[in-house]
Amino acid sequence: MTDDAGTPHPVTGLDDVVHQRVRLGILTIAHEARRVEFGFLRTQLELTAGNLSQHLGVLETAGLVEVEKGYAGRRGRTWITLTPAGTTALAEEIARLKQLIARIETPQ
Amino acid sequence: MTDDAGTPHPVTGLDDVVHQRVRLGILTIAHEARRVEFGFLRTQLELTAGNLSQHLGVLETAGLVEVEKGYAGRRGRTWITLTPAGTTALAEEIARLKQLIARIETPQ
Repeated sequence: MTDDAGTPHPVTGLDDVVHQRVRLGILTIAHEARRVEFGFLRTQLELTAGNLSQHLGVLETAGLVEVEKGYAGRRGRTWITLTPAGTTALAEEIARLKQLIARIETPQ
Repeated sequence: MTDDAGTPHPVTGLDDVVHQRVRLGILTIAHEARRVEFGFLRTQLELTAGNLSQHLGVLETAGLVEVEKGYAGRRGRTWITLTPAGTTALAEEIARLKQLIARIETPQ
């Protein structure tokens, strides 16, 4: 243990809004495309529609994604886009995870 | 987006018991020493005693840590030790996080 007990641990810098497993998945997938469709997210993340909606609500409230209703032909579609704040938040999460991994992998 | 919509995303393989921010912190710190003291964890993770106890309970129930009451001189102390299953679970989490990071950092 190299740290003084008074120094907070790297995980204290992680944001639960972003770190939570499902939301990290949403942000990661949204990062990979200009926009993603609700049903695609649901399949990729193996979620119920209700569960996905709940997590999208948390991310939308935090300003990390935009949720947009539209049409593909005559069928209603919901599209999810990462905001610039979402891109930044994902990058910060990844940077902190790398710090954590480096710490775990440093021989004691 | 290179994946078929039918292939589940890497985050579906993350275990919420381990991935949750505070519990990931507990496992990481416990990994760094033979055993850690409750008060040290509480300071490092900036938690209330109640919140830490709750998360330790989840980890103990899952068999990932052992919680042991003892004494340091005349003062009661609670010690936390990573189990072999805890070591394995932390290693799996780290391996999956690396996959996720690699995916995020691969140019689209």
